[in-house]
Amino acid sequence: MTLSSENNAAENESHLDEVLPVSPELVAEVIYALEIKDKEQLDFLLEPLHSADVADIFEQLDDNDRRLLTSFIGSEMEPDVLSELDDSTLDDVITEMDDEDVARAITQMESDDAVHVLEDMDEEEQRKIIDALPDEDRLVIEEGLSYPEDSAGRLLQRNLVSVPGEWTIGAVIEFFRNDDDLPDDFHEIFVVNPMHHPIGTAALNKIIRSDRDALIKDIMEEDPKLVPVEMDQEEVAYLFRQYDMTSMGVIDNDGRLIGMITVDDVVDVIEEEAEEDLMLMSGIRETDIAESVFEASKNRVIWLIINLATAILASMVIALFDASIQQMVALAVLMPIVASMGGNAGTQTLTVTVRAIATRELTSSNVKRIVFREFSIALVNGIILALIIGVLAWLWFDNMALGGVMGTAMVVNIIMAGLAGILIPIFLDKMDIDPALASSIFVTTITDVIGFFSFLGLAAVVLL
Amino acid sequence: MTLSSENNAAENESHLDEVLPVSPELVAEVIYALEIKDKEQLDFLLEPLHSADVADIFEQLDDNDRRLLTSFIGSEMEPDVLSELDDSTLDDVITEMDDEDVARAITQMESDDAVHVLEDMDEEEQRKIIDALPDEDRLVIEEGLSYPEDSAGRLLQRNLVSVPGEWTIGAVIEFFRNDDDLPDDFHEIFVVNPMHHPIGTAALNKIIRSDRDALIKDIMEEDPKLVPVEMDQEEVAYLFRQYDMTSMGVIDNDGRLIGMITVDDVVDVIEEEAEEDLMLMSGIRETDIAESVFEASKNRVIWLIINLATAILASMVIALFDASIQQMVALAVLMPIVASMGGNAGTQTLTVTVRAIATRELTSSNVKRIVFREFSIALVNGIILALIIGVLAWLWFDNMALGGVMGTAMVVNIIMAGLAGILIPIFLDKMDIDPALASSIFVTTITDVIGFFSFLGLAAVVLL
Repeated sequence: MTLSSENNAAENESHLDEVLPVSPELVAEVIYALEIKDKEQLDFLLEPLHSADVADIFEQLDDNDRRLLTSFIGSEMEPDVLSELDDSTLDDVITEMDDEDVARAITQMESDDAVHVLEDMDEEEQRKIIDALPDEDRLVIEEGLSYPEDSAGRLLQRNLVSVPGEWTIGAVIEFFRNDDDLPDDFHEIFVVNPMHHPIGTAALNKIIRSDRDALIKDIMEEDPKLVPVEMDQEEVAYLFRQYDMTSMGVIDNDGRLIGMITVDDVVDVIEEEAEEDLMLMSGIRETDIAESVFEASKNRVIWLIINLATAILASMVIALFDASIQQMVALAVLMPIVASMGGNAGTQTLTVTVRAIATRELTSSNVKRIVFREFSIALVNGIILALIIGVLAWLWFDNMALGGVMGTAMVVNIIMAGLAGILIPIFLDKMDIDPALASSIFVTTITDVIGFFSFLGLAAVVLL
Repeated sequence: MTLSSENNAAENESHLDEVLPVSPELVAEVIYALEIKDKEQLDFLLEPLHSADVADIFEQLDDNDRRLLTSFIGSEMEPDVLSELDDSTLDDVITEMDDEDVARAITQMESDDAVHVLEDMDEEEQRKIIDALPDEDRLVIEEGLSYPEDSAGRLLQRNLVSVPGEWTIGAVIEFFRNDDDLPDDFHEIFVVNPMHHPIGTAALNKIIRSDRDALIKDIMEEDPKLVPVEMDQEEVAYLFRQYDMTSMGVIDNDGRLIGMITVDDVVDVIEEEAEEDLMLMSGIRETDIAESVFEASKNRVIWLIINLATAILASMVIALFDASIQQMVALAVLMPIVASMGGNAGTQTLTVTVRAIATRELTSSNVKRIVFREFSIALVNGIILALIIGVLAWLWFDNMALGGVMGTAMVVNIIMAGLAGILIPIFLDKMDIDPALASSIFVTTITDVIGFFSFLGLAAVVLL
């Protein structure tokens, strides 16, 4: 997308507000109704809303109003409101609700939503609610929670439609009409063999358009794409996106069909994973807008303290040259420019690399070419910036040699920044560490240290 | 997501490679077949692949092999390979293909895919191909291209199923069976009134399970959520995500149903928009991994030059205090720490704010509370970091007053960083500028300038 299209987007800003029911005015009315404890008015305001919109209102309220709203409507709330809440608001709301109300809500959810609601609770709370569930639900949910966090197992919904390949279309349609235990909503069915291995899928529109006497196995899509239950959710999302799927079957280690994942859950995963990369690169572990000041502060300060350590490292490089700086104070004026330009150039390369790894555009087939490409870009940009800053430094301090030192240090630092920006995330990925997590700190440490060292070192040798 | 779950994800790294057919080995075999010009082997390798996988192979090849592969298989390629290519590879492939082959491929695509393929071409090329299309396709595509870039109009597919509300389920099913002009794949149908305004939707599974004599208007979901044709794609994606939709009807300014958007396109939009925020914050206009060195360099150097201007601004602040630095060179050693910590703290707040605006978690209902929250976090973290760095500076230079100055400057800069990190994106958003685009440069300029000024200024007053 280009800058100009950004402007297009901005011009249309208001469309969404016309469509979405949760406006600041509505939130204000809800808050007023809470203040005057007008339950009837609350029901009037909230009753027409989709669960996701009610969840949004919970998220917009402050802690106190959130507790009040929970106590007013918690016992009669649509179960899906819970599954739509962000983690931190969910925590607040569940703490306020009666355990039986939570348990009742959970029995009415799809199994993936129920697992999502339960997975982030503290263990004691989780145990209490699980114990209050009917046996059947409890087993399904305990199994869901037994899969690794962020794996396909946590996203899967047990309820799907599977039929033997020998059934006729007519029989399949009769089954749809007569079985009460089908999911509320489904777009395709799975065809399984006697061992319950999926051998194909059939979209409903294909079924409707086929002859009633045809066998389902003759109209199905063969070789369905399947998800192993332990696959990471980011990989599941990649498959949905790659093959434009609306649902995919999930198989256990013996190849048996145990559930399906639907695209609406994958949409959430894609948002979550992209956001995570963005957050990790800025040193934030979670979207913390809904967290308490204490929690958010704790999350962020750890990263800042690590950064402090690297900033001190860079300062120690400067301290090596304190005599040179005392001799020529222009060095102190100019040195942050070299470091900061290196940091920015390195972050650019880093961002491109982290995304290319995440989207599998950077693979072992093209890694050499892409590394060489980044080196070339760094060389070109380094020279352009060196010329600009070299001339400016020369004119500013009326010292051509200083301009030369500045330009040379700039080329060196921008090339190192480019190499660090691509090689560090590739290395971290090879070591099975999320490249977004640790890269930016390594890259800016390198550009600071090399920036100060190359500039001050060259200056000490050439100018003094 | 927490750090520990990141590790879980990493442990499962290999699952996707088992499922995806495009391996480095396959790419190497394709390259070898291209080198020895073995068309038969190429067909053998590529024929079993999904269009999206063939597109991936094109993306992995270098310019030369890409041209070769296009000349070998361009005329007989699945049309969808084109719509799956990234912009820069698409450009290469289309340049190499005959215009008639491109036109033929385009007539076989859904209208949204065709518009996607054509929209980024240069005008002359686009004109040539559009002129080679049959009249009917040409009109549809010209209309698609007439909608603003990144609007719902560019995503919509004309081909959908709409029926009058008075039809019985039986009649609807007969229509499915007998009309050849239906889309290949659909999950729900639209119910329209005589003015072709959508009045409801009905999912296929609901239709199959209903009595054949029932009227479609009696089983449909009323008040369907609809997308105005000019809505920005980011807002469309928000609606799909908010309401877990698989398809949505698109209406023109008169409220008439003119097409639908399906979730597979929205999944791409979500990736694209999240990536765009990430890229913009690092000063990269497009995902440039597939661009030429020249293009990528040009894109990135503009941002670096803007950054250079702000770095010079910060240097001018330092230059104000050159006499102080000459007197006490420890100031030059310590000053980058104050600036860099401010920059990092500001970037954290900025990232959280940009995402919260994009996901509509930050609204005018809670903006005061969230700003106050960020101020509190900055205050807490500023004090923690000031204590640490104050004591370290005191011990390092054996100068308690210097430690005090350092700590005070740190608190000031981190609070300013927090305020800048939240207020600047909010302000840009109010001005209808994408907050991700311009924020990071403003924030780091502010933290650099205030960091240097507060530290050196305080030092000049207190210490010298």
